[in-house]
Amino acid sequence: MTATLRTALVIGCGTTGTSVALALAGAGVEVALIDDDPQAVAEAAALGAGTAWTPERPPADLVVVATSPSAVVDTLHSAQSRGLGHVYTDTAGTKEIIAADAELRGCDLKGYVPGHPLAGPDAHGRAAADAGRFTARTWVLCPYDTTPDWALETVAALIELCGAHRLDLAPHVHDRVVAELSHAPHLIAAAVSTRFADSSSAFLSLADPGLRAALRTAGGDPWVWSDLLAHNAGPVADVLDRIAGQLGRAAAILREGDDSAPLELALTLEEGRRGQTALDRTSPRTTRGVRTRGRV
Amino acid sequence: MTATLRTALVIGCGTTGTSVALALAGAGVEVALIDDDPQAVAEAAALGAGTAWTPERPPADLVVVATSPSAVVDTLHSAQSRGLGHVYTDTAGTKEIIAADAELRGCDLKGYVPGHPLAGPDAHGRAAADAGRFTARTWVLCPYDTTPDWALETVAALIELCGAHRLDLAPHVHDRVVAELSHAPHLIAAAVSTRFADSSSAFLSLADPGLRAALRTAGGDPWVWSDLLAHNAGPVADVLDRIAGQLGRAAAILREGDDSAPLELALTLEEGRRGQTALDRTSPRTTRGVRTRGRV
Repeated sequence: MTATLRTALVIGCGTTGTSVALALAGAGVEVALIDDDPQAVAEAAALGAGTAWTPERPPADLVVVATSPSAVVDTLHSAQSRGLGHVYTDTAGTKEIIAADAELRGCDLKGYVPGHPLAGPDAHGRAAADAGRFTARTWVLCPYDTTPDWALETVAALIELCGAHRLDLAPHVHDRVVAELSHAPHLIAAAVSTRFADSSSAFLSLADPGLRAALRTAGGDPWVWSDLLAHNAGPVADVLDRIAGQLGRAAAILREGDDSAPLELALTLEEGRRGQTALDRTSPRTTRGVRTRGRV
Repeated sequence: MTATLRTALVIGCGTTGTSVALALAGAGVEVALIDDDPQAVAEAAALGAGTAWTPERPPADLVVVATSPSAVVDTLHSAQSRGLGHVYTDTAGTKEIIAADAELRGCDLKGYVPGHPLAGPDAHGRAAADAGRFTARTWVLCPYDTTPDWALETVAALIELCGAHRLDLAPHVHDRVVAELSHAPHLIAAAVSTRFADSSSAFLSLADPGLRAALRTAGGDPWVWSDLLAHNAGPVADVLDRIAGQLGRAAAILREGDDSAPLELALTLEEGRRGQTALDRTSPRTTRGVRTRGRV
């Protein structure tokens, strides 16, 4: 609990919302919960994430909209119209469309800071909810040019209580980053995995443990991911087209079967190894404290 | 050591050859070692994998050719011409071209059983060599129709001493299997990773640990993999073209931006989830003891 964050309302009791609520409640913030599904609220409350919201409550210091991307702006607009809080943020995995739609829809932008904790996608159910879900992870904020300091301070307090570190990015930069690092890789893993949907267990048992690790993300909720992908269409499509082009060229090299094929393939593989090495060398902790806008 | 396998010669002291030699030596087999690089032999010998081969040795019960795919047939032909052993096998990750080339080249097919232990690709250096590398893994054999029982028995003894379980497959079936489960996924991971070769560490630090796990294979030796891929060109190209088509279609759906995009994407993602679930449910142990030919 901090001076700017004594009460919070979390709307959406999936993995992300429940984890936020658990972290805040654990830090002494008084947390109220809303979800379309009363059972979801009851389960989150039973975990210690707070109590069901009731209409007589005064406006919360902070409202966290933890719904799917396609529901954020409706939920935000409705919550602001009803005066449920002083400051608002969201946790959706895409930002450009949401930030623009909130403006078009006439939401109160002075009180709303678009945000995204980078801790994996939301999921139905509370099974993966954890007060430590955001510890040492990056929490992206995409403030408007007009966002006042008092709103930013409240959302910064949320991030601090969740143990995350804040990174401010322009919405389109955020979306390009998650397209490269999360959305496109997920769809690629899903595409590779489709081949195995009707395979024999004798065939699948021959797979190396490394392949299982590589495709694990494809087990994610199809509807959560399709909503994310559709909200980040351009950046994701750019990555997919680029990878499809690379794979098509590699296939053509293999089919030509020239003596130069191993050399040509080795050049791509060597560049891939350089990228893999660079990625592996970079731990998620190195941006701790960085708040440079759009500098990734 | 068994009645049929008292002495062995391992040609090629990379990870695979050294691991085979360590397993055999540990089981009491007298192992001799050959490598183009005398240092590699010395390092393997220092690990307890055997002793450097010398010309006065009698023919070994079994010669294991553990070179790169492109060197197998030359090495086999030369070893047979010099009478270095009674039975021969290899460990290369592709089988159809090698099995056919060995026949075209006039190798003695009665004494040669093409093989491939499924335990990850070979690598330069002995760092990853381990007598337990093949424990509980599948070891594919691709015998010719004319392979006599006495040759199969010796190679089966090798597999048993390495703790692996034998699976007989036709060479083209083996190659299709490894294209799907290993070769194409490796090239896809490399293609995704190329993007990160020159990225800033601030950008890369935003990646989820799951992405690092998914791309780990791309850290493999580019020359080892390009040799493998070029020896399995058709099956790998088929998989790459299929995935490239899937990614291109997903990109087109995203760019069209119809309201139906989330539904269309969810269908692919759902099929991918089914495949991922099927793969995850299948442990490498379920084929233990299976020897069905071409039944995967």
